[in-house]
Amino acid sequence: MSKFKKASVVKGARVELHDVLGLSGAEISVNGLPAGACVPFVHSHRKNEEIYAITDGKGTAVIDGESVELKAGDWLRISPSAKRQFFASAEEGLGFICIQVRENSLEGYTMADAIV
Amino acid sequence: MSKFKKASVVKGARVELHDVLGLSGAEISVNGLPAGACVPFVHSHRKNEEIYAITDGKGTAVIDGESVELKAGDWLRISPSAKRQFFASAEEGLGFICIQVRENSLEGYTMADAIV
Repeated sequence: MSKFKKASVVKGARVELHDVLGLSGAEISVNGLPAGACVPFVHSHRKNEEIYAITDGKGTAVIDGESVELKAGDWLRISPSAKRQFFASAEEGLGFICIQVRENSLEGYTMADAIV
Repeated sequence: MSKFKKASVVKGARVELHDVLGLSGAEISVNGLPAGACVPFVHSHRKNEEIYAITDGKGTAVIDGESVELKAGDWLRISPSAKRQFFASAEEGLGFICIQVRENSLEGYTMADAIV
């Protein structure tokens, strides 16, 4: 089996990469909310930490009732149990990557895990 | 302790987010190689799967001796043991996100892990 896999993602609708890339340590989705739109539910997680990267536009995350303003270049870590919902701004859509990983699953990393 | 943390990343030099965001399931770096530049070493990993998202420009990954052309919008999963090196093209720099996670660490995800 090949030790790598590539996929090309066009911005727009939601793309989920777990099965496309054969991921085993994360699920990653690429998302776009049009201006004025929101993810239509509040959610939390059982075991997974979520990390969000804002790639385009602006919007707001509401996390346990607290509003966090978001713009391109922002990154956000959210604990599994926090209740979250994402909103695009009224004027601009919100593009973001969502990375799901199991909380506390990382052991060594970078130089502690690499072989150079 | 707050259940979330935010950071803003300006494109350019390498930024490592593990400590900045308090990540526990991943290390994530945001990287930029100028035109003609490369990561100056070949590396592999002991336990970590790496996932790369190309955010800007174009370049090449050489993985176990095989060249993979890269452009903005491309995603790549690489197994721990594969030997890899990244090169920006001669004409354009290469911007990319590198996500390190422990291979086979994910259990349930999305609806199997979410509480809505």
